[in-house]
Amino acid sequence: MAGEARRARGGGGAARRAERSAVSFETAKYIERNIPNFEILSEEALEIIERNADIILEEIGVNFPDNPEALALWREAGASVDGERVRIPKGLARELCKTAPSEYTQVARNPQRNVVIGGRNLVLAPVYGPPFVRDAAGGRRYATMGDFNKFVKLAYMSKWLHHSGGTVCEPTDVPVNKRHLDMLHAHMTLSDKPFMGSVTEPSRAQDSVDMCGVLFGEQFVQDNTVMTSLININSPMTFDDVMMGALKVYAENNQAAIISPFIVGGAMAPVSVAGTLTQVLAEVLAGIAYSQLVRKGAPVIFGAFVTSIDMNSGAPTFGTPEAAHITYGAGQLARRMNLPFRSAGSFCGSKLPDAQAAYETSNSLNMGLLSGVNFMLHACGWLEGGLVSSFEKFVMDADQLGTLHHLAQGIQMDENAQALDAIREVGPGGHYLGCAHTQANFKAAFWKSDLLDYKPFETWSEEGARDTQTLASLRVEKMLADYQQPAMDPATREALDAFVAQKKAAEPDSFM
Amino acid sequence: MAGEARRARGGGGAARRAERSAVSFETAKYIERNIPNFEILSEEALEIIERNADIILEEIGVNFPDNPEALALWREAGASVDGERVRIPKGLARELCKTAPSEYTQVARNPQRNVVIGGRNLVLAPVYGPPFVRDAAGGRRYATMGDFNKFVKLAYMSKWLHHSGGTVCEPTDVPVNKRHLDMLHAHMTLSDKPFMGSVTEPSRAQDSVDMCGVLFGEQFVQDNTVMTSLININSPMTFDDVMMGALKVYAENNQAAIISPFIVGGAMAPVSVAGTLTQVLAEVLAGIAYSQLVRKGAPVIFGAFVTSIDMNSGAPTFGTPEAAHITYGAGQLARRMNLPFRSAGSFCGSKLPDAQAAYETSNSLNMGLLSGVNFMLHACGWLEGGLVSSFEKFVMDADQLGTLHHLAQGIQMDENAQALDAIREVGPGGHYLGCAHTQANFKAAFWKSDLLDYKPFETWSEEGARDTQTLASLRVEKMLADYQQPAMDPATREALDAFVAQKKAAEPDSFM
Repeated sequence: MAGEARRARGGGGAARRAERSAVSFETAKYIERNIPNFEILSEEALEIIERNADIILEEIGVNFPDNPEALALWREAGASVDGERVRIPKGLARELCKTAPSEYTQVARNPQRNVVIGGRNLVLAPVYGPPFVRDAAGGRRYATMGDFNKFVKLAYMSKWLHHSGGTVCEPTDVPVNKRHLDMLHAHMTLSDKPFMGSVTEPSRAQDSVDMCGVLFGEQFVQDNTVMTSLININSPMTFDDVMMGALKVYAENNQAAIISPFIVGGAMAPVSVAGTLTQVLAEVLAGIAYSQLVRKGAPVIFGAFVTSIDMNSGAPTFGTPEAAHITYGAGQLARRMNLPFRSAGSFCGSKLPDAQAAYETSNSLNMGLLSGVNFMLHACGWLEGGLVSSFEKFVMDADQLGTLHHLAQGIQMDENAQALDAIREVGPGGHYLGCAHTQANFKAAFWKSDLLDYKPFETWSEEGARDTQTLASLRVEKMLADYQQPAMDPATREALDAFVAQKKAAEPDSFM
Repeated sequence: MAGEARRARGGGGAARRAERSAVSFETAKYIERNIPNFEILSEEALEIIERNADIILEEIGVNFPDNPEALALWREAGASVDGERVRIPKGLARELCKTAPSEYTQVARNPQRNVVIGGRNLVLAPVYGPPFVRDAAGGRRYATMGDFNKFVKLAYMSKWLHHSGGTVCEPTDVPVNKRHLDMLHAHMTLSDKPFMGSVTEPSRAQDSVDMCGVLFGEQFVQDNTVMTSLININSPMTFDDVMMGALKVYAENNQAAIISPFIVGGAMAPVSVAGTLTQVLAEVLAGIAYSQLVRKGAPVIFGAFVTSIDMNSGAPTFGTPEAAHITYGAGQLARRMNLPFRSAGSFCGSKLPDAQAAYETSNSLNMGLLSGVNFMLHACGWLEGGLVSSFEKFVMDADQLGTLHHLAQGIQMDENAQALDAIREVGPGGHYLGCAHTQANFKAAFWKSDLLDYKPFETWSEEGARDTQTLASLRVEKMLADYQQPAMDPATREALDAFVAQKKAAEPDSFM
């Protein structure tokens, strides 16, 4: 019976081994949660935070420096503007936020990779921003465009990643004023998953929109959201004119932005969780209200990047209980605003993809799932407080993201899942390995790592007693060797190449 | 101001460094949760599982082999007994379970170390059972009594461990029929935290009770619970006579037992979560009902040891989403029975204390906290599917247990925590590092690891680019060097020594 079942699946041992060793190109659908969110704050606590956030906006206000256009919009909307300080009457920011959509679809060039951001969904995107990369063979070094391309390929091939991300590492060998072009070109041509646009200058945001026009068609871009970009708030309560300029470009062009306080608790926000949540809410209210002043209905995400600080060394710390408290609370606040929520990630302070890295990362990933995050940036590959994109950690984390997919499925309760017949068949003292229910269900029953070691001790020893990093190095190598570029219409590819070439020729290189 | 604050704390840099490098002997109080439990199953789903568990008990029944005494108790209680099979009429087991207390105090020889097991509490105990130990210097080897003593010392010195545990490793150099005496002697004399008794023979359970009589006084033991011991169910639905014999000894003597199905999903239980939960509930109902037949009011814990299986290799897997589903569900079932709950732990399949070990462990620890576990056995030190007690992983996990303590505190919402004055003081564009609120609160604000690396990259490199395992090896060494035995009345110590010597002399060694 078991033998027949094996034969029916076809091919015998060698074929099965080949199947196991092949790298899959499958991409899972974004997570649609079938489990509750973890709600840590009471209704009363949430109301206190909301009331205090209103007090901050009205009494203290927020700064929009070097941005007369933004100040004019605020004045017109009914805020009190004094220099660069904007004080927002109680309730106004929340009212303005109401035109932001509760969810939106980000379209990918492969429509099977479209993602719906908001609701009960969770979309996973890779690490963003590190100037360094690390791998076991080459150690820690400045990132190059070659590294960037490798990360885009790895993200494309990672089953549990839904999104190609943005600055997966900083390609420091490309001029600062031109690297956004190469980065976008890589996301557009080496992957078919959705991606992020540039925010380092409003003109680069505009380039991002224009380049999407080449890829998708100009009208299509106006009618559809094809980018989700990261707009950080300069906490406390300062809205940098460069970031606000980029936000303006994206909002005007119907492109999505994550409006995200960037908080190292104790430095950019109060040393208490409730105080930090209050400031985060005030900042997000002001930022999202501003996006809706630019264009009603512009798609946005309630963001919260939060870490705490080690008060001895001043170093940011990751995967901490305080960060978890803030993220759980911020998720509740975002849901009360009916907005998509961004937080959590593969955060760690460790210099190596070792146990510290994994403890801290797992703490954050699990908390991210249960706090109701809808868009998780940095979901894999983050190392050393975000200074380093790690090749090994990228595939290690990307593998762990499978656990979030399975956890989110919740518990099946149909008759097959109840398995009473199996319990009857096996009875006291028996075992379930060969029973009909097991044969029918085992393939889909359990999440299985594609990376971690499940071998007997003796086999593992004979094969060199490899640790996780060593297994991950091999997997990176294999994935890059197996990578196949997704097909693209040659005319589109030529047009993208021409766009980049023309833009690059139009100004001198700058490394500042 | 900041300088004054530093001076006020006294001693300058050298003293502060000395303070930081000293190993603390402090033990935190057991966790009293101020956060909700994560409830994954709906009321309807819970009722289905409870109904099906009743069907199992009534229609299929459970086996109590080689145990005429137990069969007689069941017959008397109204069950149908057919050979070794006991079929329990609908509702009877649940009714019998009602006399089990919802929580109990386990008394330690140092009353400051007493633990209350049940309610919203979480008591953390170390790994239990591995025949091997591992450390970086010595590799993997059979455990000895010397290793056992070291683990007891480490548990005693670990701030976030509330319990000394039981078989922290199997001292394979001591005869099987005598090692329980040495193990208990070690827990009693090297530590003052609460501990577990022997379950490998009913006579050894009786020795444990008698030895506690020497330590605490015989009447005291009858009046107080001084041991919590681990009674595994031989799943599916088989109640081994040795384990039941030990349970009987403990119940009769008012000592607590964890009644715990031992489930590798797909082998000892159906391959589905709902089916496994149904079997777990049926088994626990039968086991706890039996404990109450022995003695009404005997303290017990609803246990659930659950892993899944890798269907390719047959290896058990740890930290998986399916184990999390089962644990969340089992926690809900336990709370509906108003019983303390045991599950989760520092579970991993990895052979080394590497990233795999930490991912899997963090998954399980976080889930354990949120699922409402009241007693977490294996909370630190587990390696290689439970075959190995790891010295490094012991201190690594024990450090992470601090995150559970802080997470469980929930979010303070008093005026100080709201921090509006701090936000007013700092204002847009400022920073919080020096503000009055930060100065007043920073010491208690954030959880801080005693082990993990928070140093700048350059310092870390200069110090040898150490990974977590290397830091942990140093910590193990330092803790064992700093260990100081807790004081004990010399007469008690002599009486314990004499008890062990007399018991050992009374029978020949056996290694079977």
